[in-house]
Amino acid sequence: MAQQLAGYTTFKYFLVTSVGPAVAHVEINRPAKLNAFLEAMWLELGQIFRQLSTDPEVRVVVLSGAGNRAFTAGLDVQAASQDSPLAPGRQDAVSDVGRKATLLRRHIQEFQDCITAVEKCEKPVICVANGISIGLAIDILCCADIRVCSRDTKFSVKEVDIGMAADIGTLSRLPKVVGSSSWVKDVCLSARYFGPAEALAVGFVSQVHDSKAAALDAAFKLAELISSKSPIAVQGTKELLNHAQDHPVDESLRYTGVWNSAALQSADFQVALLSGIQKKKPVFEKL
Amino acid sequence: MAQQLAGYTTFKYFLVTSVGPAVAHVEINRPAKLNAFLEAMWLELGQIFRQLSTDPEVRVVVLSGAGNRAFTAGLDVQAASQDSPLAPGRQDAVSDVGRKATLLRRHIQEFQDCITAVEKCEKPVICVANGISIGLAIDILCCADIRVCSRDTKFSVKEVDIGMAADIGTLSRLPKVVGSSSWVKDVCLSARYFGPAEALAVGFVSQVHDSKAAALDAAFKLAELISSKSPIAVQGTKELLNHAQDHPVDESLRYTGVWNSAALQSADFQVALLSGIQKKKPVFEKL
Amino acid sequence: MAQQLAGYTTFKYFLVTSVGPAVAHVEINRPAKLNAFLEAMWLELGQIFRQLSTDPEVRVVVLSGAGNRAFTAGLDVQAASQDSPLAPGRQDAVSDVGRKATLLRRHIQEFQDCITAVEKCEKPVICVANGISIGLAIDILCCADIRVCSRDTKFSVKEVDIGMAADIGTLSRLPKVVGSSSWVKDVCLSARYFGPAEALAVGFVSQVHDSKAAALDAAFKLAELISSKSPIAVQGTKELLNHAQDHPVDESLRYTGVWNSAALQSADFQVALLSGIQKKKPVFEKL
Amino acid sequence: MAQQLAGYTTFKYFLVTSVGPAVAHVEINRPAKLNAFLEAMWLELGQIFRQLSTDPEVRVVVLSGAGNRAFTAGLDVQAASQDSPLAPGRQDAVSDVGRKATLLRRHIQEFQDCITAVEKCEKPVICVANGISIGLAIDILCCADIRVCSRDTKFSVKEVDIGMAADIGTLSRLPKVVGSSSWVKDVCLSARYFGPAEALAVGFVSQVHDSKAAALDAAFKLAELISSKSPIAVQGTKELLNHAQDHPVDESLRYTGVWNSAALQSADFQVALLSGIQKKKPVFEKL
Amino acid sequence: MAQQLAGYTTFKYFLVTSVGPAVAHVEINRPAKLNAFLEAMWLELGQIFRQLSTDPEVRVVVLSGAGNRAFTAGLDVQAASQDSPLAPGRQDAVSDVGRKATLLRRHIQEFQDCITAVEKCEKPVICVANGISIGLAIDILCCADIRVCSRDTKFSVKEVDIGMAADIGTLSRLPKVVGSSSWVKDVCLSARYFGPAEALAVGFVSQVHDSKAAALDAAFKLAELISSKSPIAVQGTKELLNHAQDHPVDESLRYTGVWNSAALQSADFQVALLSGIQKKKPVFEKL
Amino acid sequence: MAQQLAGYTTFKYFLVTSVGPAVAHVEINRPAKLNAFLEAMWLELGQIFRQLSTDPEVRVVVLSGAGNRAFTAGLDVQAASQDSPLAPGRQDAVSDVGRKATLLRRHIQEFQDCITAVEKCEKPVICVANGISIGLAIDILCCADIRVCSRDTKFSVKEVDIGMAADIGTLSRLPKVVGSSSWVKDVCLSARYFGPAEALAVGFVSQVHDSKAAALDAAFKLAELISSKSPIAVQGTKELLNHAQDHPVDESLRYTGVWNSAALQSADFQVALLSGIQKKKPVFEKL
Repeated sequence: MAQQLAGYTTFKYFLVTSVGPAVAHVEINRPAKLNAFLEAMWLELGQIFRQLSTDPEVRVVVLSGAGNRAFTAGLDVQAASQDSPLAPGRQDAVSDVGRKATLLRRHIQEFQDCITAVEKCEKPVICVANGISIGLAIDILCCADIRVCSRDTKFSVKEVDIGMAADIGTLSRLPKVVGSSSWVKDVCLSARYFGPAEALAVGFVSQVHDSKAAALDAAFKLAELISSKSPIAVQGTKELLNHAQDHPVDESLRYTGVWNSAALQSADFQVALLSGIQKKKPVFEKL
Repeated sequence: MAQQLAGYTTFKYFLVTSVGPAVAHVEINRPAKLNAFLEAMWLELGQIFRQLSTDPEVRVVVLSGAGNRAFTAGLDVQAASQDSPLAPGRQDAVSDVGRKATLLRRHIQEFQDCITAVEKCEKPVICVANGISIGLAIDILCCADIRVCSRDTKFSVKEVDIGMAADIGTLSRLPKVVGSSSWVKDVCLSARYFGPAEALAVGFVSQVHDSKAAALDAAFKLAELISSKSPIAVQGTKELLNHAQDHPVDESLRYTGVWNSAALQSADFQVALLSGIQKKKPVFEKL
Repeated sequence: MAQQLAGYTTFKYFLVTSVGPAVAHVEINRPAKLNAFLEAMWLELGQIFRQLSTDPEVRVVVLSGAGNRAFTAGLDVQAASQDSPLAPGRQDAVSDVGRKATLLRRHIQEFQDCITAVEKCEKPVICVANGISIGLAIDILCCADIRVCSRDTKFSVKEVDIGMAADIGTLSRLPKVVGSSSWVKDVCLSARYFGPAEALAVGFVSQVHDSKAAALDAAFKLAELISSKSPIAVQGTKELLNHAQDHPVDESLRYTGVWNSAALQSADFQVALLSGIQKKKPVFEKL
Repeated sequence: MAQQLAGYTTFKYFLVTSVGPAVAHVEINRPAKLNAFLEAMWLELGQIFRQLSTDPEVRVVVLSGAGNRAFTAGLDVQAASQDSPLAPGRQDAVSDVGRKATLLRRHIQEFQDCITAVEKCEKPVICVANGISIGLAIDILCCADIRVCSRDTKFSVKEVDIGMAADIGTLSRLPKVVGSSSWVKDVCLSARYFGPAEALAVGFVSQVHDSKAAALDAAFKLAELISSKSPIAVQGTKELLNHAQDHPVDESLRYTGVWNSAALQSADFQVALLSGIQKKKPVFEKL
Repeated sequence: MAQQLAGYTTFKYFLVTSVGPAVAHVEINRPAKLNAFLEAMWLELGQIFRQLSTDPEVRVVVLSGAGNRAFTAGLDVQAASQDSPLAPGRQDAVSDVGRKATLLRRHIQEFQDCITAVEKCEKPVICVANGISIGLAIDILCCADIRVCSRDTKFSVKEVDIGMAADIGTLSRLPKVVGSSSWVKDVCLSARYFGPAEALAVGFVSQVHDSKAAALDAAFKLAELISSKSPIAVQGTKELLNHAQDHPVDESLRYTGVWNSAALQSADFQVALLSGIQKKKPVFEKL
Repeated sequence: MAQQLAGYTTFKYFLVTSVGPAVAHVEINRPAKLNAFLEAMWLELGQIFRQLSTDPEVRVVVLSGAGNRAFTAGLDVQAASQDSPLAPGRQDAVSDVGRKATLLRRHIQEFQDCITAVEKCEKPVICVANGISIGLAIDILCCADIRVCSRDTKFSVKEVDIGMAADIGTLSRLPKVVGSSSWVKDVCLSARYFGPAEALAVGFVSQVHDSKAAALDAAFKLAELISSKSPIAVQGTKELLNHAQDHPVDESLRYTGVWNSAALQSADFQVALLSGIQKKKPVFEKL
């Protein structure tokens, strides 16, 4: 069995293990509740990915849900109705609409920031979805770099069914994650379920596997492949692709030039070139 | 037969009917001319969608062409050559290139504004294409939220064939509506026809049906599904997806937080939550 | 055999021929080395496309690699290790990290500018890939308007394998060229090969043909079709699509209105309209 | 006395007169109430400036307040408390916070659009402030191209004093209208009054005169000077400066090139050049 | 003497006191070293302003330096040369240029984030400069909303004198804080000192006072005035002005409409209106 | 007398001399014609500044006009009427409005690019205006980093007087160069003259001197001061300020962090720090 990763053993709702050298496996670990999220969980998620982002022992992260029933069933709505600034108790405390709006805005931003930590993690993140993957599941999946799933996955942008527009990232990122706006609007406005075949066809996931185990295995293999490359190259590639998504081409080229003016002075460039010529497996320093 | 919607009975070229509670059906109604557009028609189109946008009786709009031959064959070029600022008569009146440019610019903007009214309509718009769907048809389809079509649809970005770059929205929106720039450039530069299979493969439409009737039927079903959800949630989702398409992720998240700071104080959120728990069909107020 | 195009006969590494009226065929011409690029080659590439951009004899450009083994194997790394500012000799000359960064930044920008010349060429560019098409091949392909390939093509975003993030345009443009971010991250982070079927499915290419000859033939046919249309319409369409890709819809509509305020005063508009009515093949002036 | 301008005689709250050839003078005409705005007034203001924008008889507009006591005292708050979606009566009708937010958003946008019509008017607008010039006065002044005032003017960004952030344009435009962010924050956060000397020093106005009459006179003289120039040149200059304010330099240069590709083909360019050589006063066609 | 503010008593390098109701006074408290910053200090600064941002007891913040000799002499360079990732010791640990670049980038971002906390503080911040105010002093001052100073202040954008471009915010914000780019380039490229008169003339500060005591006194008065207004109005005004600075006018208007759709439903609006009519001093709830 | 700078002796219309170590003085050298520009001249200007940009012998550039009568009287309109795509002869050659628009657009862009070369020059540019400084003079002055002038300078944004909107940069840059939009609109719409006092008050220039000689002298002194600083620091400061002008604060901070991740590894940082401690004049390598 995989070993827990040093420095990540104190989290209550997440299991972080080491999968081969330099690959971390983060598991949402509340399987009895379909991995549904409490406030404490997204705070932990943010903390874990901020730590992984600069952890030199880790080069690639695989994120999945514990158990075979769900990646996550999203926000634990029952619990949230007690925790959140909208919970009856807290509503009493603040009745002015303007002040409640301020509390809500701050609350949403804090929640968003924790999920965004997955996107901002400097190391590539491969997400493995299975079973129930709805609501917050889509927000998280959109932050991953690469998405794979098992054949039993049931996806849904579920928020309109609880009377709200998704506000933790799905609506901001999904239009940039897949190419068909007609499909994006369809699934976001109807809250209908969609399966792996549809997810693959529109490009939401890039691999579908027969089981969660097979999907995880494929994710680990891909993670190991990526982790064997120069971390300077890999992390630069992630940063530049993320930047490109949100900038015009000329801006992206300018940023790229400045980025590589330092990165190309790394030893990795020489090491990789030499290894290519010598047909040897290159070894790169941590980052 | 469907009933005409109160408040929309005076339009000459459009038929607006009520399809079940809260779904409006807008038909381009000049079938004898393949629903080709006169200037009066796009002015009416703009007016209709601006009115629908804030009409509390309507939650979802389905837009199609009357008859079985065409969604629309685009601008009625023959008529346009008499109406437009470029028509011979008006050319005499204004011969200075700079002044004619000013008139053209204003004319294009007024035309664009009317078509953009479909995109800006606060209610979701489902477009059903069939038969001839060329030129202005594509401009309009790009403004819809969800696009479906029948198997006999013949699409074409036709403008280069009349010696001009499309300027009413196709070139501005198509690159954001589908994911393959190679395909977009191909159909826009060659003005070639493409069919439903190709449209589905690239994501331009998200459903293809055997006949116009079947396509309309599917659109109505989807419209009814969406219209049964909270209008606060649905209209917020449309607005946030439209905003996301044109903004970086961080901008979109910031706007989303401010948007939901008011929307989450709506009763719909509580109503929907409660209905979920009680397994009852929620009822939402108009918007 | 095709005839060399006047004004383009002095290039050492490129063959520029005339393919029917108004279509130029540019071939990367170093087949013995799999068309791998030396610094002199990308300088020539930039020069050729800047010249084609305003050459009134040319309306469409087809770009391919000479021979049957490769579009291009990318940068000639061995040669580059001697030419570039990072080459050992030049490293001695400039040892300060800050100054070397300045040289690198200028070098990358000059390289980018040459490849960007393909994108900025005012005439449509159709790229035909075959065989080995890796590294710089992808940077160049991303600048083309339309991409087709033969069944034997082997694509790879190869840069991470030489220890660097791609900096000549692939990372800036690929996310806008295809719709699936999961796929883009997958191929860019893993540097794995992908073939024509995958390229077609994600929309990276829009046609796959059985052989390079068949692919070229299809490209020439498409080029001839496009070259028969109004150059005012075609070049305006390219410019407006390129602008749209990097701007919000409202910005794009505003720019389009100003653009067409002059373009619609061209005779091409009348010529094309009249030809349509008279069922004659229109003839357009050069541009 | 100045003559009313044909086509503008039906407005209830505005007097539009002709001041020499091609200069229109718009007066806010509710002096008994310090020109305070009712909803009907900002609707009229929008209508007037949309009409002036394309009226070929008018080349420059001067905007001032009737009487000697005020440019305008801003929104007529007492009246607004009955008209607005927040008025008690209408509050009863809509009690849901989310729905009321929707109504408010639409109301603010309609109000903004009317004031923005001053900025979007294609003809230059010179604003003359005097006496009380607070609240909405600043929103309107920020939309003018050139601001002058009399020595008795009392300015204030008054909105925080009625418990709200200014939302009709002051906060959006003032930071771009003057150069000192410290001063902008000071007057917007404190709602304090500031006078002509301070307004001139920070660049909010560009001229201060001893009396309203003198200020108006100076505005008319400047308007006449500008109206004697080529309207192609003048209106192009306004459009390009407005575009530049909100775009990076490279975007602005690109837009400018496209704009002038039509404008430079106007006869005005030749007329002005020739007049310069022949030392004659040029005469330009209407626009 | 002012009382320390509850919740802010544990900071080592900052003194946070209460100045009248709802005004906090933050003092950089290392006067023996001219308030020069250690790494621990900017970490504390960030922490303090993040806490003040949502502290309901505080409505306005005044920031100054302890003692009469300096606001701050900037970074304690001697100390920094031991702490920073560039310090000799740490240089040994990481010698690869690419990896050192990564550490530096992360370090700069963390430093920037702490200073940006002053700008992002939801409550208005008034900065009082005196004596030596160089280097990091300017970075901090640029983040304040309102800047005042005493007659003995000596400002300098000092960074080029230590061989670096300022990277903690001065170069990003100063061009937006004052209106003359010629002056900005002059002081940033030459690192020369400039005094209060020059700072006032270009709009860098908006008030100059004879002594630090007088400047502080004026700042407290202004803070008290602002703190007596509706916090909904004041904090909305700050947010909307900050947003406007970095967005085109149409974006800013759109964001403003959404913002106020919640804020205008606050009781503050009614309270302020009523107070105005009743000529009473309004009392607003905390925020 | 100053010595001509090696590598810049072949220009026909510009004199480039060396003023002390590392300062180049570029003079527009057609004093008999008030330094009015021919097409050949702006092509040379572009060439000179592109060369200076990467010339390691030069750290600061001073740009002025030869003689005592003018910085430049702008475009030599008489000559331009023969050279330009609008000249009668060339008008015959291309009569189609659309094609002429294309030629004009390309012509304007080439002209803009040459003037933009002054802005893009990596070394700081100090411009000294005197006497007649109109039309193109303002376009060029706006590209300089620092502007000084003599007391006899007569400025004018002259273009509307020749029937056109300025299209070589003034309208794109002036709103960002000074802080008062009212003043910018005033001088651009009226084409009136303005003098040094007004230019200083609005921040267009940052110094005014009694004579051209005194202004030049001050510019040389400032140039020498700047040239004595670290070129890594100075050129980075220019680049980051130019970037900041056209980007939101968060974008600018991100770019700054990446930029300095390489720049801070330069020896200049250590050299400058050490010199400060040792009170010695630092010596920096070329760049």
